[in-house]
Amino acid sequence: MINQIAAKLYEWDHILVLSHISPDGDTLGSACALLRGLLQKGKKVMFRCGDEIPSKYQYLFEGLKLSDFQPKYVVSVDAAALHLLGQPGKDYEGEIDLAIDHHISHTPFAKTEYVDATCAANCEIIYQLLKAMNVSIDTAIANAIYTGVTTDTGCFRYRSVTAQTHRIGAEMIEAGADSGWINQVMFETKTKQQIEAEILALGSIEYLLDGKCAMIAVTRELMEKTGISDGDLDPIVARPRQIVGVLIGATLKEKEGGFKVSVRTNEPANASAICQKLGGGGHKAAGGCFIPGDLETAKKAFTKACQEYAEENGL
Amino acid sequence: MINQIAAKLYEWDHILVLSHISPDGDTLGSACALLRGLLQKGKKVMFRCGDEIPSKYQYLFEGLKLSDFQPKYVVSVDAAALHLLGQPGKDYEGEIDLAIDHHISHTPFAKTEYVDATCAANCEIIYQLLKAMNVSIDTAIANAIYTGVTTDTGCFRYRSVTAQTHRIGAEMIEAGADSGWINQVMFETKTKQQIEAEILALGSIEYLLDGKCAMIAVTRELMEKTGISDGDLDPIVARPRQIVGVLIGATLKEKEGGFKVSVRTNEPANASAICQKLGGGGHKAAGGCFIPGDLETAKKAFTKACQEYAEENGL
Repeated sequence: MINQIAAKLYEWDHILVLSHISPDGDTLGSACALLRGLLQKGKKVMFRCGDEIPSKYQYLFEGLKLSDFQPKYVVSVDAAALHLLGQPGKDYEGEIDLAIDHHISHTPFAKTEYVDATCAANCEIIYQLLKAMNVSIDTAIANAIYTGVTTDTGCFRYRSVTAQTHRIGAEMIEAGADSGWINQVMFETKTKQQIEAEILALGSIEYLLDGKCAMIAVTRELMEKTGISDGDLDPIVARPRQIVGVLIGATLKEKEGGFKVSVRTNEPANASAICQKLGGGGHKAAGGCFIPGDLETAKKAFTKACQEYAEENGL
Repeated sequence: MINQIAAKLYEWDHILVLSHISPDGDTLGSACALLRGLLQKGKKVMFRCGDEIPSKYQYLFEGLKLSDFQPKYVVSVDAAALHLLGQPGKDYEGEIDLAIDHHISHTPFAKTEYVDATCAANCEIIYQLLKAMNVSIDTAIANAIYTGVTTDTGCFRYRSVTAQTHRIGAEMIEAGADSGWINQVMFETKTKQQIEAEILALGSIEYLLDGKCAMIAVTRELMEKTGISDGDLDPIVARPRQIVGVLIGATLKEKEGGFKVSVRTNEPANASAICQKLGGGGHKAAGGCFIPGDLETAKKAFTKACQEYAEENGL
């Protein structure tokens, strides 16, 4: 159990911790909290991530004493599958000693797997692990764990949140986590450009299937005009599904040669099933696909897929 | 303290509970949790609010056995001043026995005052009170308290949130609060009209003080055109403050004879201090005031108050 994992880490040294690609607050919070806990226990640690760390997460790494060495042990955090580790996953394929994850879809790839899908955030597991290791939760660890918990739960909003999630939130605040500031940075900070892009994107909303489907378009022109980047689009993608009566929300983002469609659904609609009609896939509530061609072509193809899906499933 | 209030309520009967006008989740959650607790202790209770209850809060009242009588005792919840009780406040002026509130700006108006501004939500006080009264937290009470706590903290997002807030959240989830559903209804459900209103309101953004202040206007024309009601505006009010660099975010809502200004601030700006310049008040991070006249007059007066505040405080 968690005590066995703690005991392993207690014995190990020269430990490399890996975060998943497209790093988010939970994989980075998990890594930084674990690295700091291991440092507290006198271990030498290093860190790798297959993608660059977005600047808004840099505070997690402040004062973190990372080394560079030939690792004796490799631990991944919050990675549901090997390929989600990117290049470091390839480099250490077959040599990852421990995978700590909370995804129900976790595909084993490590010598030891610790997966607890009852945790809303992977940082909930890290919290338990650090407790089992008798690590003292200092301010930096509290910030890291709080960051993971809040970012992976939409600030304690999702249905995945449990009493445990809140109790860890409470303890991290008491340990000095700057929760108000972290939430502001993660959820409440938009540039003027993002606001402008949001206005334009929302202005493009079209409703299909008697309002059961809402579709917005983010063209290159919109992105160039407002100067926003792909990473700024997450809040926009969430919007169409939030409209009363909408079961299928879609955002069509212009890419090289066509449109990437991000689909988010409410019960009982199945995002994955709709996207599969267009060569894509995903989960029940979130899926994606690529439609080659111009905006009109993409809209038509997506509309057709939605209509087919609706007919087949009596939506 | 809280035990003395609990002892009073234990002795009282035929109790009228009052919520503030423009009722929100915290005043209604407080009222419904308290009413249910009093019912559990065998009291006869009634409820009044000076404004209509928005339909999204109706679940709080399901199965709640309210009576109608000449009240022997009157209790207000979450009301920072007498006038915020509307008509019932006038009806019972001088006869309100107990005011339970968490606003730092609370202006006393009741025979007994219980004000705890360390609570992020008034429902945190109600929770303590029900505990002191040995009320058993059933599902309906858990939903009411969770609703107050989550709505008054932007879903555990604001700086006002403490470890206690999270611990109460945890306990309410364990007591059966449908937290995921409540958060979806309160934070993730928008009508087509609200989306349209948001686009128009965001389109009206003006920046003052070199971008340190952002101001949006919600005119009657906008509300009539989009068909939204006052209760639909909360998500819009939160927006100006969320823009990078903005310390003072303001929403000017047209009312009879003038504009109601909702101010939300980031550190170090003080919303209450700014609103006090215009005859209003509030907390450090959220305040309000009323400016008579047309939109241009209101904008000018608010701009002047912000400039004065900025000069005085070296913003």
